[in-house]
Amino acid sequence: MTSQVKFNVDTKALGRIAQGGAVLGAGGGGNPYVGRLMVQQMLGDDKTVPVIDIDTMGDDELILPIAMMGAPVVMIEKFPSGNEIPNLVNMIERLMQKKVSAILCIEAGGLNSTIPFIAAAQMGLPIVDGDAMGRAFPELQMVTFTLGGINATPMAMFDDKGNGATFDTVSNQWTEKLARALTIEMGGSAMVGLYAVTAKQCREYLIRDSLSMAHEIGEIMENHGGDVTDALAKRFGGAHLFQGRVRDVERRNETGFSKGTVTLEGTGDFRNSEAVLSFQNEFLAAEVDGKTVATTPDLITLLDANIGEPVTTDMVKYGLSVNVLGLPCDPIWRSEKGLELVGPKYFGLDVPYTPI
Amino acid sequence: MTSQVKFNVDTKALGRIAQGGAVLGAGGGGNPYVGRLMVQQMLGDDKTVPVIDIDTMGDDELILPIAMMGAPVVMIEKFPSGNEIPNLVNMIERLMQKKVSAILCIEAGGLNSTIPFIAAAQMGLPIVDGDAMGRAFPELQMVTFTLGGINATPMAMFDDKGNGATFDTVSNQWTEKLARALTIEMGGSAMVGLYAVTAKQCREYLIRDSLSMAHEIGEIMENHGGDVTDALAKRFGGAHLFQGRVRDVERRNETGFSKGTVTLEGTGDFRNSEAVLSFQNEFLAAEVDGKTVATTPDLITLLDANIGEPVTTDMVKYGLSVNVLGLPCDPIWRSEKGLELVGPKYFGLDVPYTPI
Repeated sequence: MTSQVKFNVDTKALGRIAQGGAVLGAGGGGNPYVGRLMVQQMLGDDKTVPVIDIDTMGDDELILPIAMMGAPVVMIEKFPSGNEIPNLVNMIERLMQKKVSAILCIEAGGLNSTIPFIAAAQMGLPIVDGDAMGRAFPELQMVTFTLGGINATPMAMFDDKGNGATFDTVSNQWTEKLARALTIEMGGSAMVGLYAVTAKQCREYLIRDSLSMAHEIGEIMENHGGDVTDALAKRFGGAHLFQGRVRDVERRNETGFSKGTVTLEGTGDFRNSEAVLSFQNEFLAAEVDGKTVATTPDLITLLDANIGEPVTTDMVKYGLSVNVLGLPCDPIWRSEKGLELVGPKYFGLDVPYTPI
Repeated sequence: MTSQVKFNVDTKALGRIAQGGAVLGAGGGGNPYVGRLMVQQMLGDDKTVPVIDIDTMGDDELILPIAMMGAPVVMIEKFPSGNEIPNLVNMIERLMQKKVSAILCIEAGGLNSTIPFIAAAQMGLPIVDGDAMGRAFPELQMVTFTLGGINATPMAMFDDKGNGATFDTVSNQWTEKLARALTIEMGGSAMVGLYAVTAKQCREYLIRDSLSMAHEIGEIMENHGGDVTDALAKRFGGAHLFQGRVRDVERRNETGFSKGTVTLEGTGDFRNSEAVLSFQNEFLAAEVDGKTVATTPDLITLLDANIGEPVTTDMVKYGLSVNVLGLPCDPIWRSEKGLELVGPKYFGLDVPYTPI
């Protein structure tokens, strides 16, 4: 069976996907600027990557998600060597005794919606339209696949120096724990291949069409400037949660994560109000004047008020004018098991989850 | 080609090897008491393990060293589940696409001279008479194989919960760095298989007959009591460096190692003298009245003055009467490259190496 191509992605389309992915990244998922640089360097001007629908794949065909793991701020300084992806694919194929048929994004994000395209181009493989989060989350067990009882391992991991490791663990939480420790040891970021699944295994748990959605977001951004927030809120059933200027950023690197809070001073309709956003790589909760207005697993994204571009948690700076966009998460995360895995309680936030 | 059996090791002979191994362990290499418990539980009364000479093996036959990695004090509390060894052997065979023909000790030690016998018994394999240190050292790149340009990887690692990892690194120092971080994450100790080599590859760098030597030390200990120190010094060209009582032990767990110093108050011929022994899992240097009398890579071992048994760095306690035995290391460590890898300078000790 040959899978059918839905559409082909060139450098320009991938630029839109990187921007849209960064909106879905909810402050994390890697920096879109780094994503664009990588595309330019590794994809070039003339290559295209075919995007396919999972339903046109054979049941037994193997799909490999590929991503960068680590604190986002480190990824800006540690550029991949280019050997990581072939190393990852070879290692997973060796461990599973099976050829990889397609690449998948594990999460949305400026970098992690882009890296899998580079991987697909480098390996001459198609990419599946979808992902396993519908946004970005900080820990690797936080995927819909975990809800489906799918193992993260065998997982492979390579750094820019050529060091590699693989994992075979008793739970996805253990995979996170071990892989996180090694990411730190490898210098703060690494390229990973994990949750290798057959098309049949993941069909039910895949969040479908998220590459198409990222591309559409990118298009909407091209057609709007700083006023994109309301357009996106309207199109995807979200809300324009706040508008303001960054008054304070408290940020620390802790156990391999970038953690902290951003305080905003209201402007326009939100004059005399204050918002506090807490984050762990991604934004976890938004409070306006002491009242929680959105929490994980819904998406909280900062958009530059002047140019409309998403601002990741590692790039947010004092003085920046921003809009805060809230978008509803995929319905699977609103289930009891979903909230247990990625709800506010898991992150130690003492607030109930109230859907946007 | 079928390798010839030099001798068969039963539970009793293995008890001697564990004791002799603990002397060669120079304060590390795992606790001999834990080693004996494991033998009893996992080998039983009726099994024997054939010991073979490397020269009777075919050039292409694969040898797998197996060991416990981690801070020795943790190993006392974290007993293996029994699945680690088959998991390790299977993983290495999968990665190397080759069957393992024999097991090897990577280092001497109360535990690490014993574990490989349990592995050999469990897998129905012979064990090679030799090891890759001729003693114990704290870091995994500190083997004669590193001097021979042999890679530690592919390396495999399993914990008692069933979590596994493998490594494929650019240097043996990187293997140490990554594996150490994971050992800590796995709870402080793990079972490892590393430096898988063909008989041809390792023939030149193997420290030969060290199991026979450990067994002979065990026999000498059986025939002597507390006065075994002089007998061992005489037989192996060593020195009785000190006799005294433990006045102070300063011990800390740091980056996965047990580090510290032991201070002894002289008794007998050493009355009015004081000795200070520094350690990182193993004893690194012995000072008597401010003068260095022995350093790594020579062996410094504590023996209980009453019963003659070796006292590991994790078991040494205030008030204990001990003798300090110094034994010469294998000549390979006295080369320039050997001293660079395991000499006093590597451990940050500001003393020249003066052979015992």
